[in-house]
Amino acid sequence: MKITIAQINPIVGDIQGNLEKMVGILSSTSKDKPDLVVFPELSLVGYPPKDLLEREWFIQKTKTSLQKLFKISNDYPDIGILLGAPLSTGKDTGKGLYNSAVLIYQGKILATQHKSLLPTYDVFDESRYFAPASEIHTIKFKDEILGISICEDAWNDPELWPKRKFYAFDPIAQLAKDKATLMINISSSPFFMGKEEIRYKLIENHVKKHKVPFVFVNQVGGNDELIFDGRSLCLDKEGESIAVFPCFKEHIQTIDTSVRGKIKYAPQDKVESVYEALVLGIYDYMRKSGFSKVVIGLSGGIDSALTCCLAVSAIGKQNVLGICMPSPYSSEGSIKDSKKLAQNLGVDFRVIPISGIYHSYLETLKTDFKGKLPDVTEENIQARIRGNILMAFSNKLGHLVLSTGNKSELAVGYCTLYGDMAGGLGVLTDVPKTLVYKLADFVNRKSEIIPQEIVVKPPSAELKPNQTDQDTLPPYDVLDQILQCFVEEVKSPEEIVKLGFDRKMVQWVANAVDRSEYKRKQATLGLKVTSKAFGVGRRMPIAAKFEE
Amino acid sequence: MKITIAQINPIVGDIQGNLEKMVGILSSTSKDKPDLVVFPELSLVGYPPKDLLEREWFIQKTKTSLQKLFKISNDYPDIGILLGAPLSTGKDTGKGLYNSAVLIYQGKILATQHKSLLPTYDVFDESRYFAPASEIHTIKFKDEILGISICEDAWNDPELWPKRKFYAFDPIAQLAKDKATLMINISSSPFFMGKEEIRYKLIENHVKKHKVPFVFVNQVGGNDELIFDGRSLCLDKEGESIAVFPCFKEHIQTIDTSVRGKIKYAPQDKVESVYEALVLGIYDYMRKSGFSKVVIGLSGGIDSALTCCLAVSAIGKQNVLGICMPSPYSSEGSIKDSKKLAQNLGVDFRVIPISGIYHSYLETLKTDFKGKLPDVTEENIQARIRGNILMAFSNKLGHLVLSTGNKSELAVGYCTLYGDMAGGLGVLTDVPKTLVYKLADFVNRKSEIIPQEIVVKPPSAELKPNQTDQDTLPPYDVLDQILQCFVEEVKSPEEIVKLGFDRKMVQWVANAVDRSEYKRKQATLGLKVTSKAFGVGRRMPIAAKFEE
Repeated sequence: MKITIAQINPIVGDIQGNLEKMVGILSSTSKDKPDLVVFPELSLVGYPPKDLLEREWFIQKTKTSLQKLFKISNDYPDIGILLGAPLSTGKDTGKGLYNSAVLIYQGKILATQHKSLLPTYDVFDESRYFAPASEIHTIKFKDEILGISICEDAWNDPELWPKRKFYAFDPIAQLAKDKATLMINISSSPFFMGKEEIRYKLIENHVKKHKVPFVFVNQVGGNDELIFDGRSLCLDKEGESIAVFPCFKEHIQTIDTSVRGKIKYAPQDKVESVYEALVLGIYDYMRKSGFSKVVIGLSGGIDSALTCCLAVSAIGKQNVLGICMPSPYSSEGSIKDSKKLAQNLGVDFRVIPISGIYHSYLETLKTDFKGKLPDVTEENIQARIRGNILMAFSNKLGHLVLSTGNKSELAVGYCTLYGDMAGGLGVLTDVPKTLVYKLADFVNRKSEIIPQEIVVKPPSAELKPNQTDQDTLPPYDVLDQILQCFVEEVKSPEEIVKLGFDRKMVQWVANAVDRSEYKRKQATLGLKVTSKAFGVGRRMPIAAKFEE
Repeated sequence: MKITIAQINPIVGDIQGNLEKMVGILSSTSKDKPDLVVFPELSLVGYPPKDLLEREWFIQKTKTSLQKLFKISNDYPDIGILLGAPLSTGKDTGKGLYNSAVLIYQGKILATQHKSLLPTYDVFDESRYFAPASEIHTIKFKDEILGISICEDAWNDPELWPKRKFYAFDPIAQLAKDKATLMINISSSPFFMGKEEIRYKLIENHVKKHKVPFVFVNQVGGNDELIFDGRSLCLDKEGESIAVFPCFKEHIQTIDTSVRGKIKYAPQDKVESVYEALVLGIYDYMRKSGFSKVVIGLSGGIDSALTCCLAVSAIGKQNVLGICMPSPYSSEGSIKDSKKLAQNLGVDFRVIPISGIYHSYLETLKTDFKGKLPDVTEENIQARIRGNILMAFSNKLGHLVLSTGNKSELAVGYCTLYGDMAGGLGVLTDVPKTLVYKLADFVNRKSEIIPQEIVVKPPSAELKPNQTDQDTLPPYDVLDQILQCFVEEVKSPEEIVKLGFDRKMVQWVANAVDRSEYKRKQATLGLKVTSKAFGVGRRMPIAAKFEE
């Protein structure tokens, strides 16, 4: 069967725009004479639509758009259109919607298949909105018996869940049993570092088990914290690749599922994948929320340097403004290094010293703080002055403030609310410090864009004399390993100690993470690139008492 | 049957502390010789425990604490103990936990009943953590056949869900069918204004339908955004009240379920209930996260005045610091009125003018902003200076900053990120402006605590000359009605226009609400007092494109 895989980047909520995109693709691909054009999960509304699904007008608009598509399908009487959309269950009990795959052909719905397995963990809330399918069945279409599934339906592979299977039912096995000759999975499967390989293995396992070609069609694009990497695939019935789509960009290609696969699959380099994910995350956040320029506070440190590089990759140097805001404790090098970075990148650069403002705060507060020693208060005042200045540029010029804090800092609360945490999008929110260095190496792989001085200097907040991060924090390579265990792998401190880490340090990290939840509650939206990010996928109580 | 209803206030995560509280109650109530002591839903761990439920050590600790309770129950061989706890399903497929009622008697578990209906909407995420019960059954205990249910299990009353029944199954009807002679529902049912009456009606309906006495045991206390009002009940089989517990406080009382009810139930006054909810919300947030004092920015407006009154009610005047931070645009009255309020309440009060700091910002930015007219930028700078000063006091003195913005402002984005939105707890986050006035009247019901000047002055942010809120916003009485329809009742603009509101105004409000989602993403945790608050119960996309 000839299938056009439409790896598209829909805008959440923009039903009209998404429909137009689909119709455009239908028109341009029709010259290839495909039997079927396949779009991703919930492609008509964008994934995840969140509580828009609870709006009646939204579901109504979905319906009328599907009806438009029925009409349009008449213009392409040889082409089936398979897309994802929320469909009413038609029942007055239970959640009122299905997460459905809809097959439109010759002016009407030829078949639907609703999603059976509704992910409700980490960032996923599908049981909040959807009822599960009551059954799954194959669909006869042209010369094939299609086994259509939706994202999570394909993820019940016991090999992937060594500890616990989330679901008792395996929809793919059921479709195989029902004699599917071609499997099609429409997905909106978000990226994390390393997921591509897991997904490939998953699909390969299905093929090896059931000996049926498998078409995987994934959404691409950044939607709030989630970045979808695309990487759609078609494997032949022996598990060889007929098509491997690019990561992180829209791609439309017509393939023949009956041929033998000849493409050698190799996963993208992990560091590169994170770089590309962040670039797309920035680009799409801005595009989809109407920003064209950014402003970034350049501290002379590696986090802001990397953020600046990512911004330039995403939206071009002409749209990036870097501001260096030296305080009385900033080193001479910070300004010089920031300037050099800005020159290397060709971005607009300004220096706005904050000492005058800082001293006016101290002057204003001196009576009230009389007799009290300087402490974190004075450090935070500086960070918050910078936050205020960046936001002033945002207000005055309409630039989006990119926040530059990394995951390691955010984890243990080594960051200032309304200070360095200020901004409309957290670029490195889910990037551990050690990965920041790897990304910087990636940036500098061909030539030195991030000045070596920035790469080699000991990390410092420069908020008091001679400060370095390591006065307060464990060395980053150790900290990141502990955080990997504690946050990503949800291991207990006891388990982490057993892996050979120092007990006191592990306990300090665990306590620091738990104690900083109130800060993260107010953190800006941050791009997710690991399997467990802070944010919507990690829901911890704040006014609570526990020690892990 | 003699039942001790233990309307307790557990701390989330504090399994050891909650256990000790239960054991203390067991000891003190034993003199009343009850047959059964009943604690609320998930009382051993506090509700909602959120992702702590995904920690193995947490579930392990629950187990060992239950075992301790087995032993202790031997000291009270005539008393059954019914409490809520997460229990392992013992299955390696599906979610691994039940939300269970556990009946402990004479050293062991006599019976368990798992929750059948798992709320997964608004603020509730139970399908994220729990598997539903596979069956519900009555339990013979002493002379009664107990019909035990957990919170939502009692909420499948078609009368309450005119549009849609969430569940096909009615656990209470099943228990009645199984010949329960006494219904017991353990709950952690959070407060919103007017919910008490709905809940009473719900239980009354069950009793009238099944002619069996009903004991309802609810958690009390503030846990992050949620405030639990308690208000436990016992109705006799005719629907008359045997016991009506107080709202918003712990209460332990032994009742006899076999007597005829003689208490006349009357719901608490709605405005008073919100006042008490907010007081408990402040008190518990502080207690449970280790704060004893607060600092509040007093603007001379009604929001900060009310917040200050609530804080005094919650933690006493000696623990409240009010700071007035006049800018060049503050009226003379603002300082005077704030001072008078502080005097009336007896709280510490300081005036810290921000003009010096403000001018140092303008001076610092004058080159960069040259030729650009003053706009919202300069307004926000002032608000953010205040945020920075309040946070400096928080850092220096260890006080919690209470944020004072109301729901109407937050809804339409009439507030400044990192400015007036700064703080550790948003007291009025879910209180519409018109309700702020009603609460102020409630405060002043006996004597003028909030100066009349504050009550009658036109609301103003005082961030530019002669500014009032109504320059920008619709009149608050209209705005709040539209917001009630749009946010709480999730009506579409079209439906709201049909109710008689001006189309342009409705569309402006809807757009303003949707456009401000990015601000609310970073809002402080705010106390929920209506049926639909911003925050965890309302999940909207940000980088999206839709017009409601």
